Amino acid sequence: MKLKAKLLDIQAGGKRIAILDDETASLVGVHSSDRIKITYKNECLIAIVNIAQIFPANRVGIYREISTELAIEDEETLEVEPAPRPESIDYVQAKIHGERLRENQVKMIVRDVVERHFSDIELASFVTSLYIHGLSMHEIEALSKAMVETGSTLSFDRTPILDKHSIGGVPGDKTTILVVPIIAAAGFYIPKTSSRAVTSPAGTADVVESLCPVDLTAEEIKEVVKTTNGCMAWGGALDLAPADDLFIQVEYPLAIDPLLLPSIMSKKKAVGATHLVVDIPTGRGAKVKTIGQAHMLANDFVDLGQRLGIDVQCAITFGEQPVGCAVGPALEAREALSTLMGRGPADLLEKAVNIAGLLLEMTHIEQGKEKAESLLRSGEAEKKLRDIIEAQGGDPNVKPEDIKVGDNNAQITAASSGRVLWINSKHIAEVAKEAGAPRDQGAGLVLKAKLGEHVRKGEPLLHIYAERNTKLETAIEMAEKLQPVGLSKKPEERMLMGRVPAPTIHKKTFVLER
Amino acid sequence: MKLKAKLLDIQAGGKRIAILDDETASLVGVHSSDRIKITYKNECLIAIVNIAQIFPANRVGIYREISTELAIEDEETLEVEPAPRPESIDYVQAKIHGERLRENQVKMIVRDVVERHFSDIELASFVTSLYIHGLSMHEIEALSKAMVETGSTLSFDRTPILDKHSIGGVPGDKTTILVVPIIAAAGFYIPKTSSRAVTSPAGTADVVESLCPVDLTAEEIKEVVKTTNGCMAWGGALDLAPADDLFIQVEYPLAIDPLLLPSIMSKKKAVGATHLVVDIPTGRGAKVKTIGQAHMLANDFVDLGQRLGIDVQCAITFGEQPVGCAVGPALEAREALSTLMGRGPADLLEKAVNIAGLLLEMTHIEQGKEKAESLLRSGEAEKKLRDIIEAQGGDPNVKPEDIKVGDNNAQITAASSGRVLWINSKHIAEVAKEAGAPRDQGAGLVLKAKLGEHVRKGEPLLHIYAERNTKLETAIEMAEKLQPVGLSKKPEERMLMGRVPAPTIHKKTFVLER
Repeated sequence: MKLKAKLLDIQAGGKRIAILDDETASLVGVHSSDRIKITYKNECLIAIVNIAQIFPANRVGIYREISTELAIEDEETLEVEPAPRPESIDYVQAKIHGERLRENQVKMIVRDVVERHFSDIELASFVTSLYIHGLSMHEIEALSKAMVETGSTLSFDRTPILDKHSIGGVPGDKTTILVVPIIAAAGFYIPKTSSRAVTSPAGTADVVESLCPVDLTAEEIKEVVKTTNGCMAWGGALDLAPADDLFIQVEYPLAIDPLLLPSIMSKKKAVGATHLVVDIPTGRGAKVKTIGQAHMLANDFVDLGQRLGIDVQCAITFGEQPVGCAVGPALEAREALSTLMGRGPADLLEKAVNIAGLLLEMTHIEQGKEKAESLLRSGEAEKKLRDIIEAQGGDPNVKPEDIKVGDNNAQITAASSGRVLWINSKHIAEVAKEAGAPRDQGAGLVLKAKLGEHVRKGEPLLHIYAERNTKLETAIEMAEKLQPVGLSKKPEERMLMGRVPAPTIHKKTFVLER
Repeated sequence: MKLKAKLLDIQAGGKRIAILDDETASLVGVHSSDRIKITYKNECLIAIVNIAQIFPANRVGIYREISTELAIEDEETLEVEPAPRPESIDYVQAKIHGERLRENQVKMIVRDVVERHFSDIELASFVTSLYIHGLSMHEIEALSKAMVETGSTLSFDRTPILDKHSIGGVPGDKTTILVVPIIAAAGFYIPKTSSRAVTSPAGTADVVESLCPVDLTAEEIKEVVKTTNGCMAWGGALDLAPADDLFIQVEYPLAIDPLLLPSIMSKKKAVGATHLVVDIPTGRGAKVKTIGQAHMLANDFVDLGQRLGIDVQCAITFGEQPVGCAVGPALEAREALSTLMGRGPADLLEKAVNIAGLLLEMTHIEQGKEKAESLLRSGEAEKKLRDIIEAQGGDPNVKPEDIKVGDNNAQITAASSGRVLWINSKHIAEVAKEAGAPRDQGAGLVLKAKLGEHVRKGEPLLHIYAERNTKLETAIEMAEKLQPVGLSKKPEERMLMGRVPAPTIHKKTFVLER
């Protein structure tokens, strides 16, 4: 039937949603969440119906996405008719019922997700079903491939293309900023794309941004890599595996992450990686709690790599405390730069040369770790980082102290003497976020003591930095409440590990980093 | 932080949604689907954030629900800050992980659903998890009670309160319109509330509306019942178990129905039923396919009834063809009235006296079926129906032929002679809907032959009625394509029951009736 367009001056986050009032929807013959076909001047598209009360009759409300695509002006007459559900919704229902999906069914789902034919309800139900029923490796492979095919890809003038990725979950992990220049200095291409923080105090892209611009186009990435062998760009605007970002939009509020493997591997395939090290931080407080679980996940990464034509090795790394001492964009950039200049924390250095070493050995270089160490010691890695910074448009002569951190800062000190027995990574992240990270680039914290170190009463445990004084105050409060650094008691001093019901409710946290 | 209100002149179907642009959301410190607390003049509420691109900065877009509740005018300054997820979301996550929920956790979820604190994503994930993991009877009981407690209830001046309910799925089922006057004529209260069609060609409320108004208030229901012992009202505006309607909004697009038991039983508890017969139509084409499944479901109804203080018996009824011959609001009203006047199809009559008989026997009346038959034969039931029609504001002297049916009508005839071997209920429903039912009250169809009857070539199978000629034509086309009435071939004439791949794709249908 004919309805007049009522243009809504809002972009609905890419969703194709049309609004009808109750009565008009009933005349068209659709319910809420049904689909309609909107035709205007011989062009048409499918939209999902939202029902509104108090909305003009005989009008179809359309968000900016639809009015732009069909070039519709306010009050113009459109043809509106019920449209069937896309076939892919049948396969979502099959998944709800626990069936295994075939490759072409998965492709149809991913294509319709990217073309915004799914409602939030359908997307949420699909992701929940994947989480509950699990995915076969065949489905994971099909999802990964479909996610690559429905987006852009990068290609380079030579191979191999090396890459590294961490599944995340450990604050302060700036390993990438050491590994990329080491590999590039060794003569290999490593076009690294990273994400910004989703739930953490700093994503790698946020940290690198304290050194140079990261928002590069595909052409700029190619240029930087051609010049320097490496880059450290933000991957978010490159349209690499865009389905992933749409899945994340429902995974995040549900705090489930069933698409971890296809999400990571589709992005790697899209940048053309041929050799990849996946870092799996493991232990108490990390995403993966035990070595056994880490091995299972690692085997899946290796298997999926083979299916996608990527040579994958996994590094299971110690994940029970932050990597290095700094947490927060500018503070981490400082620490990474210092470490490349020869004055950095031992755990960060050890992790970086191990991962770089694995990558080098995958390209048949012997004694990769020693080679990585020598590239660091000789200053070649530092020089390479400065080349990359320059190629991306930053200052190649930047010194660590040039990187601006928050003016407002304070130390949290030890209430008693002892050895550091545990550091709660989630609480460390919360304190850094409370201080303003990642939005305030200079906000965050520096750990003054790490696992196993002895601290005397009154000595500092944390140094908190904030750009705004109010943020500093609330961060200090939170640090004092959470006590994220635990000083040792011998077992005979603390046999009680918890009580039920607990005197306070532990807030559940969920880390989603890609 | 302070943001200016941008009022959107739309009611968002009850949802509390606030729109922020990307940059403003990041300043507030929230992602899409996070929650914000909006404070205005010392009043506050929690809303769910939708992120929009191309939306003014430093503005919070609010739909009519929020602006009305807080009495906000356009451009007024509001305080906006991040708000934590409600605790109930933790229990949704527990359900995703397959945990059993406790009564207080279920209550918290249902309360937050009714108060519109859930996003579509959370609601869809919850319903999907319930479907996949299943519900324990303890959870079903808790859900039912919570759904009653979060809505309005009816109460009457005497007991027992009798009631009947069909789980639906069979077109043309106008049994209620016979059972209510029989029970009322027997002297018992039966305050029947019914729903309108969701996916079917006619809900009981749609059918009754061809006889009299059905949109009664709680007070009007009490008055009608006091006068006549019975009523047949639309339940939709009475706020009985309102959570159910919100669950249905996500169950419908997903075509899953995990809340069947709490949905039905919470409504029955809310009207104060003490004795209930649940009709479970069973067989090919019905919701429940086998007698075994029907018994399992029936046991759950009986068990749940005991937990809620309702005496429940189930009637497992033959569900392989429509009940009676008419499908569509006015046609069904005609048929129901005729049947009460002594000239109706045998299956409808048989079903009605059986269900009425069960109800009477539950109140310790012996030979209930015979009692019901005698109330029909004596005309007391017809008189009672006319009393109810009058009490609800209709014409008590209405004759079947007074009820207006579609002027445009046509017959579908048999292409060959044979015995009716099957009637595809879903296809019958589709043809009736194509003709315009339930929106066009006079649209629908009348079956001219039912299971087991012999039809000669050229004799009518269906008589289709429509209010609009275009609708009649498309309904005829659909009937000729679907061939919903199957004439017998002996097995030796049709051994092939299907082929794979099929030459045409069978459309999956989902019946959601309450």
